[in-house]
Amino acid sequence: MNKIEHIGIAVKNINEANKIYELLLGKPPYKSEKVESEGVETSFFECGESKIELLEATNSNSAIAKFIEKRGEGIHHIAFAVNDIKAEMARLKDEGFILLNEEPKKGADNKWVAFLHPKSANGVLVELCQEINNQK
Amino acid sequence: MNKIEHIGIAVKNINEANKIYELLLGKPPYKSEKVESEGVETSFFECGESKIELLEATNSNSAIAKFIEKRGEGIHHIAFAVNDIKAEMARLKDEGFILLNEEPKKGADNKWVAFLHPKSANGVLVELCQEINNQK
Repeated sequence: MNKIEHIGIAVKNINEANKIYELLLGKPPYKSEKVESEGVETSFFECGESKIELLEATNSNSAIAKFIEKRGEGIHHIAFAVNDIKAEMARLKDEGFILLNEEPKKGADNKWVAFLHPKSANGVLVELCQEINNQK
Repeated sequence: MNKIEHIGIAVKNINEANKIYELLLGKPPYKSEKVESEGVETSFFECGESKIELLEATNSNSAIAKFIEKRGEGIHHIAFAVNDIKAEMARLKDEGFILLNEEPKKGADNKWVAFLHPKSANGVLVELCQEINNQK
């Protein structure tokens, strides 16, 4: 894992949350993006080499809607940047981690992404991500 | 906020969790430290410019024990590095954020720390931290 790529935060209302995180982080989001396949609207804030990603569900089947229904708003996942997502997925599977998707899928912010089951990592939903234009 | 200083993860058994995060992150923790005042044992892993902090409660009154009892293991807080913690606390208080401590207190890893109430930041427990030898 090269760095923390981003922290994903589940919010009920992304417009309201954008205002709060702009105050907190001292700058506006540099990008907003809908990811239809995941049923989310996202916004991204820079913070050093990492980002804060806010996520609002766009439908009630979205993982974000279910997370908020169960636990309320809060930190949803940690994403780590990797150079070679397929190699890292294979390595972690060999080490006993449970993958939530067997193949990388397209995520927000021009990334290939894959998730590890939270029960693999002490309750933490871990995302691996690789820039799409950096793919091997 | 200069960068994500660390992500704090509440775990039941830090020795077991250290093994999992060493596999995940590809390196062992660089430091372990008890913070008696907070009732926690901690370990830190480097990840780019940030760190992953694992926290195990050392007594049942610890905030970590209460968190795990209520929500299970998982991500407990995000800590941001700041240059001047007192100035940042004053700025955020003026902006309407609720501080959990009015004065900086000594945290793990040689830091002055302060926390914002999760209800200020969409369910996220936010920590500010400043290197002690960098204090103004």
